[in-house]
Amino acid sequence: MVSDKKEAHAMKPLKLAILGAGGLGKGMVKRAQLSPDFKTVAIVDSEAYYFSLNGIHPSEVENLSSLGSLDHSVRTPQAIMDLLEAHGQDIDVIFMALPNIPVAFMPEITQKIALQGSFQGVIVDALKRTRAVEMMLELDSILKQAGLLYITGAGATPGFLSTLAAVAAQSFVEVKQVEIKFGVGIANWNQYKATVREDFLHLEGFDADRVAQMTDADIEAELEKRNGLIELVNMEHADDLILELAGICPRENVIVGGWVDTRHAKKPISTTVLITGITTQGETATHTITLDDASTMVDNVCGPALGFLRQGVRLQKTHHWSGILTSADIMPRGGVEARVTSPTEPLLV
Amino acid sequence: MVSDKKEAHAMKPLKLAILGAGGLGKGMVKRAQLSPDFKTVAIVDSEAYYFSLNGIHPSEVENLSSLGSLDHSVRTPQAIMDLLEAHGQDIDVIFMALPNIPVAFMPEITQKIALQGSFQGVIVDALKRTRAVEMMLELDSILKQAGLLYITGAGATPGFLSTLAAVAAQSFVEVKQVEIKFGVGIANWNQYKATVREDFLHLEGFDADRVAQMTDADIEAELEKRNGLIELVNMEHADDLILELAGICPRENVIVGGWVDTRHAKKPISTTVLITGITTQGETATHTITLDDASTMVDNVCGPALGFLRQGVRLQKTHHWSGILTSADIMPRGGVEARVTSPTEPLLV
Repeated sequence: MVSDKKEAHAMKPLKLAILGAGGLGKGMVKRAQLSPDFKTVAIVDSEAYYFSLNGIHPSEVENLSSLGSLDHSVRTPQAIMDLLEAHGQDIDVIFMALPNIPVAFMPEITQKIALQGSFQGVIVDALKRTRAVEMMLELDSILKQAGLLYITGAGATPGFLSTLAAVAAQSFVEVKQVEIKFGVGIANWNQYKATVREDFLHLEGFDADRVAQMTDADIEAELEKRNGLIELVNMEHADDLILELAGICPRENVIVGGWVDTRHAKKPISTTVLITGITTQGETATHTITLDDASTMVDNVCGPALGFLRQGVRLQKTHHWSGILTSADIMPRGGVEARVTSPTEPLLV
Repeated sequence: MVSDKKEAHAMKPLKLAILGAGGLGKGMVKRAQLSPDFKTVAIVDSEAYYFSLNGIHPSEVENLSSLGSLDHSVRTPQAIMDLLEAHGQDIDVIFMALPNIPVAFMPEITQKIALQGSFQGVIVDALKRTRAVEMMLELDSILKQAGLLYITGAGATPGFLSTLAAVAAQSFVEVKQVEIKFGVGIANWNQYKATVREDFLHLEGFDADRVAQMTDADIEAELEKRNGLIELVNMEHADDLILELAGICPRENVIVGGWVDTRHAKKPISTTVLITGITTQGETATHTITLDDASTMVDNVCGPALGFLRQGVRLQKTHHWSGILTSADIMPRGGVEARVTSPTEPLLV
């Protein structure tokens, strides 16, 4: 059902499976549809998977509350494992758009995928919490044995914004602070339940256990108290670990926070990254990165995730890389074909 | 003579040779001195080389007009080749800080280094012009045969600013324009003769032949007419080629320009990168990156060059990469040692 691709892509598109069918998963179906070098062939929720080698069009899934209601979906409580068992060889890349409460959820799924061995491509996640990324890093040898390349922390924060910070930091002799401050506006919190629930972990008085026990009505009531607006401070986001691993600065120099408006699509504040460091002359200086308010969570999570997948595929296919990387280890790539031969093509043979 | 390193670095520092001893070369001696994971062991100009395995301190060279006047330098008209012949095995990384008029100068030197075979580490340049980078790309197989890894366009523009643009572009379905606008302030143009001469190529009525024939007094007279300020528009900078090769956008969507004040250290304008593209929702949006005015050419060229060298060394040592890459192919790294094991260390074995 791929029909409105802008132009035929000379290379065969990468066949994409999206694990998770909430706001982020559906957003990725929409975003990937606009990049001709990708074709979404599978999407999964907790009750079913839907696989279509001809491509899944956003209109097929955007208004569904459950994939099980689709005619051609396969209903199963082990949707991820059953999808990969049946179609793993027909999938090139995976985007993990799963909710991550509890923190061990994604590492556990990843381990199962590696041990099952049906899928052998490249995986990216949009994990947020430092502890979750730490757990992913421990899977390196299992992933290597399975021949999988996994890029963790490849969404917006960490991912897009931490990579920008890692590059901008190069001016400085010493990086004193990286401050990531995001603004997110969503018209209706119901579209991004898992994301908003994860944000609640960072509010005063809340933790994973308490949030897990809250009903949607409880969340709604808490949002009502705040007029739909939540301010998140000192978030445990893996930007800190990822920037430390990339040699940029000690993790305690990294601060992540933001404002989420759960009732309006307009962002409550602009998303910014401030990188403060010491120059060669000993002065303190701050570089500023400001995202356009018109760019949404889908743009800033899903776009970069596709860019990291492109680079991951190159590294896996041509250099036989496997195991786990963080987003700051590699440069995301674009999907525009160069009119000259890439200088790196010979290197990649 | 290394004395004011901030702290002992647990890893052995990378032994750095700087080819070129003008403003940029001397700036790199100063900058590298502040990163404990590097040690400058050699610097070269057209008449001599100076090699010191114990490290070269900025104070030894900063006020020299010629390296030949140093007690322990070796005077020779083939300074680069003689340095590498004698000490190539004691050098890990090279920073090319050579003037590049005519455009074939750096590719020719690089080819000689590869054919000589005495040096087998990683090289970065801060080349500017698209044609020069194109010529470098043709050296891929020669560099591979020599076991060298060469990262081209790894200064500020291209390099630092084009890499920031390549990351920021990830939000967009399609990148309509990348506009790099730099401000440079130098107290005295005599400190950056080669850089200012190269800038003249981009002024109306000037080209490589004319600039090559101009004396310093001629340049001075032209600067006088402009009150020391030069505006550079539509510069032929390799950011365009490098972003096209990285899949970001067609090269004609990339614009590079700037203002250089050759009489004041204060920048005439702030350096900015504007990345304009189309969002998933079809809106036009612009991300903005603004560098702090306190960051100088040395910070924004030499810092990133060290970051690209760090990554290049990892890729060469542990993945046996060789040949040529552009700066947009790899993420620059910082020099801070992480307190946890890097996830990628196992991968790198």
